[in-house]
Amino acid sequence: MSSQRLMVVKSGGEEAFAEWRACFGSLSPGLRVRTWTDPEVRAEEIDYALVWDPEPGRLAAMPRLRVVFGSGAGVDGIVADPAYPLHIPLVRMSIPEATERMGEYCCWAALSLLKDARRMAIAQAAGRWEDFEPPYRASQRTIGIMGLGNMGARTAAMLQGIGFPVIGWSRGRKSVPGVESFAGAAELDAFLARTDILICLLPATPETRHIISAATLAKLPRGAGYIGAGRGMQQKLDDILAALDDGQLGGAVLDVFEPEPLAPGHPLWSHPRCTVTAHVASLPSRMERAAAVAAAIAAHERGEPLPNLFDHAKGY
Amino acid sequence: MSSQRLMVVKSGGEEAFAEWRACFGSLSPGLRVRTWTDPEVRAEEIDYALVWDPEPGRLAAMPRLRVVFGSGAGVDGIVADPAYPLHIPLVRMSIPEATERMGEYCCWAALSLLKDARRMAIAQAAGRWEDFEPPYRASQRTIGIMGLGNMGARTAAMLQGIGFPVIGWSRGRKSVPGVESFAGAAELDAFLARTDILICLLPATPETRHIISAATLAKLPRGAGYIGAGRGMQQKLDDILAALDDGQLGGAVLDVFEPEPLAPGHPLWSHPRCTVTAHVASLPSRMERAAAVAAAIAAHERGEPLPNLFDHAKGY
Repeated sequence: MSSQRLMVVKSGGEEAFAEWRACFGSLSPGLRVRTWTDPEVRAEEIDYALVWDPEPGRLAAMPRLRVVFGSGAGVDGIVADPAYPLHIPLVRMSIPEATERMGEYCCWAALSLLKDARRMAIAQAAGRWEDFEPPYRASQRTIGIMGLGNMGARTAAMLQGIGFPVIGWSRGRKSVPGVESFAGAAELDAFLARTDILICLLPATPETRHIISAATLAKLPRGAGYIGAGRGMQQKLDDILAALDDGQLGGAVLDVFEPEPLAPGHPLWSHPRCTVTAHVASLPSRMERAAAVAAAIAAHERGEPLPNLFDHAKGY
Repeated sequence: MSSQRLMVVKSGGEEAFAEWRACFGSLSPGLRVRTWTDPEVRAEEIDYALVWDPEPGRLAAMPRLRVVFGSGAGVDGIVADPAYPLHIPLVRMSIPEATERMGEYCCWAALSLLKDARRMAIAQAAGRWEDFEPPYRASQRTIGIMGLGNMGARTAAMLQGIGFPVIGWSRGRKSVPGVESFAGAAELDAFLARTDILICLLPATPETRHIISAATLAKLPRGAGYIGAGRGMQQKLDDILAALDDGQLGGAVLDVFEPEPLAPGHPLWSHPRCTVTAHVASLPSRMERAAAVAAAIAAHERGEPLPNLFDHAKGY
């Protein structure tokens, strides 16, 4: 009976847990929700785990565990556990709300680069009236999206709605309306040469670690923009900083870092051509995420298939 | 012959004039371009004037003047001249590039309000990692546009492309795809009650002076957003400030003011819920504007009708 199910949560701090519990209290009244570190919870009682970065080995020691839910879009903090119990289904947090939010953030970031919003923010902070003419319109700046999954395709459509031309690059060729598709390593350079503003929305895999490097950025047209809204592990942050300093990058909007948070005093905080945001791009609200988990649990308990299963072979 | 035509310019300072002259030098090599204050220019030599805010009476004293061109989207600084020579055609700067730029700015501003970019900018300025969950997605915030001319209609389409629902208000009912149209004074309150983010793109006329006032803002849902990208004379700035202070407005992005520039030390510069930009929203580049003027002069000299004539009766 669902009234006996127990889920442990390790995602965010105490305040976050209180919010998770309140969400599930209204969504799944029969589900008991406890913190990962609750001393009164015995491992053999646990049915579900909602986690971001579980300590290695802990999940494998829960004998009754039925499903693991990732609490964010990426599950690399979970599968990094060498003892991860591969027979337990792992559900990615892939919900339409997150896709919408990512698209909105990328539109905001692309327009911020187009209009030089960083320059405007610096002027406002100084109380200085600084009128200037942004050199381009959206129709004159091609956006290149690395990764044309659900998130990339939706983001492309939204950017096209504003007037940006959009091209895309992915492992295999994709068919996305109005988006010229470049595929595989052989076409990466041609893709980058055509890209005025680069967005990386690839999944976090060993192959995409540090894919945003000096070598990659050097293939963009001089003065290009970069939007870092995917995953911090994909970026060589020092290379981005160097490219901003020497003008190869004309501007950047960065939402993800490795490690997070970005270190206090890091030069990117005050860089005149870099907007820093605190990993806010695509995180749906806790209520939206809790609703997706509650719906998946309900489906699972009715014997229906789980959505958005992580594929250990593909790595996403 | 066009090699004998002379145009005087009064729009921006010396630096701006140098750029205007360079633009026309490449676009209309036969056109002589002089400053408004050039002591060597005699009034009876002048064929064309490209102006923003001519001193009253000066245009009327140019006996050979054929056409006056406004250098920005509004011509109120020109028609404010009680001696304006009504028989001389006045051409508004209405070019597609300006429409695109306005739409892009409004999309940027709407997304900035949605994501609370002001809070993010303040956090970056302090070097502080501040992650938070914006409460809404675009699909949950209705944008209300006052003024559904070319600019309003194009802006509506771009906002819809991002996912915002859009409604509009104008003097007469309009038919814009996907945009519910409210018309006239009788429907203004209903329009405002439905509007989560208000944008004013009305023309600058005596009727629209101070239309954005405490009375108007009070009819929005509490915590609504406001984007001031139209004309400064339409806004009671003190009322906007008061609405931000008491929370009736949850946020504002302001690009226009009266007077401009916004005074140093004005409380809006540092307001935690107000983004201030320096009248950058829709100004197309000087080259784009010069190209429109050059094309209109060429058409006029071929005997073709002038585009975008100001209608003194309608006031726009």
